[in-house]
Amino acid sequence: MAQRFEFRLTATDGKARSGVISTPRGDIRTPAFMPVGTAGTVKAMLPGSVRATGADILLGNTYHLMLRPTAERIAHLGGLHRFMNWDRPILTDSGGFQVMSLAALRKLTEDGVTFKSHIDGSSHSLSPERSMEIQRLLGSDIVMCFDECPALPATDAEVATSMRLSMRWAQRSRDAFGDRPGHALFGIMQGGVTRDLREESAAALRDIGFDGYAVGGLAVGEGQEAMFGVLDYAPGFLPEDRPRYLMGVGKPDDIVGAVERGIDMMDCVLPSRSGRTGQGWTPRGQVNLRNARHKDDPRPLVEGCGCPACQGYSRAYLHHVIKSDEIIGSMLLTWHNLHYYQDLMQGLRDAVEAGRLAAFVAAFHALRAQGDIETV
Amino acid sequence: MAQRFEFRLTATDGKARSGVISTPRGDIRTPAFMPVGTAGTVKAMLPGSVRATGADILLGNTYHLMLRPTAERIAHLGGLHRFMNWDRPILTDSGGFQVMSLAALRKLTEDGVTFKSHIDGSSHSLSPERSMEIQRLLGSDIVMCFDECPALPATDAEVATSMRLSMRWAQRSRDAFGDRPGHALFGIMQGGVTRDLREESAAALRDIGFDGYAVGGLAVGEGQEAMFGVLDYAPGFLPEDRPRYLMGVGKPDDIVGAVERGIDMMDCVLPSRSGRTGQGWTPRGQVNLRNARHKDDPRPLVEGCGCPACQGYSRAYLHHVIKSDEIIGSMLLTWHNLHYYQDLMQGLRDAVEAGRLAAFVAAFHALRAQGDIETV
Repeated sequence: MAQRFEFRLTATDGKARSGVISTPRGDIRTPAFMPVGTAGTVKAMLPGSVRATGADILLGNTYHLMLRPTAERIAHLGGLHRFMNWDRPILTDSGGFQVMSLAALRKLTEDGVTFKSHIDGSSHSLSPERSMEIQRLLGSDIVMCFDECPALPATDAEVATSMRLSMRWAQRSRDAFGDRPGHALFGIMQGGVTRDLREESAAALRDIGFDGYAVGGLAVGEGQEAMFGVLDYAPGFLPEDRPRYLMGVGKPDDIVGAVERGIDMMDCVLPSRSGRTGQGWTPRGQVNLRNARHKDDPRPLVEGCGCPACQGYSRAYLHHVIKSDEIIGSMLLTWHNLHYYQDLMQGLRDAVEAGRLAAFVAAFHALRAQGDIETV
Repeated sequence: MAQRFEFRLTATDGKARSGVISTPRGDIRTPAFMPVGTAGTVKAMLPGSVRATGADILLGNTYHLMLRPTAERIAHLGGLHRFMNWDRPILTDSGGFQVMSLAALRKLTEDGVTFKSHIDGSSHSLSPERSMEIQRLLGSDIVMCFDECPALPATDAEVATSMRLSMRWAQRSRDAFGDRPGHALFGIMQGGVTRDLREESAAALRDIGFDGYAVGGLAVGEGQEAMFGVLDYAPGFLPEDRPRYLMGVGKPDDIVGAVERGIDMMDCVLPSRSGRTGQGWTPRGQVNLRNARHKDDPRPLVEGCGCPACQGYSRAYLHHVIKSDEIIGSMLLTWHNLHYYQDLMQGLRDAVEAGRLAAFVAAFHALRAQGDIETV
């Protein structure tokens, strides 16, 4: 195991990169997809099963964990890794995004944010210093700066004001984080869909200096075209020798497009959340297993897929357990979706290493264009 | 693998028995506890995990499966074993009990029962012949006679009338089942808590002749004392060389008392159902993990337990995920409870084999009398 946090690029293909992030808790192969373990669990999965899909790292949510069971309680119990029985790397977000999307009665000042819990209405506050403290108590391997993300739609002036506040908070996060060998602090670029603001934000972050850099403020409803528009230039504003993390993305085609544009890390609740609603992700696109056309289909969701759902069960069974609201439906489809996502990441890594990403992406889109297999 | 259904007693200790039921799908060690896979899944468990707890056989519910996805559909898909990805023995009940407890607008005649589905209100009927057909379509290894169980409270006359109807249905079930090598048909003794009626029912069943005999009509609210009262004599009315199955039982102390009284097989939803509501079964009794006293407790639910919940997690974690309504709470506690139940069965089998059941039962009650471990 590495004693320090290090990033090593092993290949590039166009703007796309493959590499390895080394940490004392294990390596992270990039481009990496991080399943989301919001409240100390990747929903409907045991950690060993998450690992079996090929995940090298999980994401934990500061906002949820600070409210319940609290960061202090998790620290007292030995940290988040031990608490949730996952000994590999964990990245925690800063809590800023969830405060804006989930909490009530938010009040934003230069110092930070006060808000009421969406669980019990209790009062809490977050600031760069408190977010760093919480993420330290959790024992996070990759810590995110505390930032602010403006609600859409927003004017350029609002985006600029918000971004500059986030940059001052980035400096305070850096100062509060201190020197923690083996742990990394990532800055978060903001600036909406405005090139000048993205460039200004990236310059501010580079001046402070971080172990990695996230592209924030995307995947918030702006649409894939606008997101790819930003990703056509924004990663180029960031240092080449540090990992680049696109927060909250996304669907499989978002992921492929982001990797093509130089992104190294992503996270999203989509594969697990959609698994709980009967949606299966396949090389031919999204399949709604609630649909009655599956009810007599003896074939697996995806022929040749190595996940337990496809190895052990027919579409007819998956349809039955989803219609019957059986927990095993969520378990199997979440496992399948995470497996598919990690298979996709492995395909992308292999393609970049082999210098054949364009052919991989063309085949990816061609298969999706065919749509799901015909009903028997 | 055996080609036929066979039962071999290997030891007795007082009235208690241990043995092996051999079937073409594998052996069933007795006394056996059968987890319930109502609608084609043991809720919140994958079949491989159920097997890992030590279960040799599952129970499936005819009533639920005939309504959704239907027995014909399951047959078309290759049978229940393949449908639910469990290749070991399956016992199916006859549907009679669930019709009485779940369905609406029931109408009972000599021929059978008509009723409306609790799912969508559609009309259905069950009779001895139709129940045998459904259980054959499912591919059940151990088929139960179609019987009727009177609602409590009932007079002796009502119980007698109902029991005699069930005995006529037992003959019709036997006739409809036919000769199916490798598959077994069990008769079900009725007669409430009345000794004469139990004796009459057992005699009727013995005259027909079955591969095994169930004690029905208990575990329906009569209480443990009344149940044990019946079990003090009723198993003795049944042939010694056939397995004796106590339906729908029960709590761990019910199971221990039933084994002491000569029962070989049992089933109950309790370990899985209570796992989904935050209840853990331990050698010291039932523990409510929703209780706030666990919120800082770093210790496992049961020290030394080999299940994933106890090997990987603290009581504090279990409390957190249960309070947060996370699916992993149901997954871990169901696994623990089924593991505990199977550990108990192994302990009972070993004790009978060694001729030390009395000491085992004394130790079982002594540990429960101590209660749960103290809070830290």
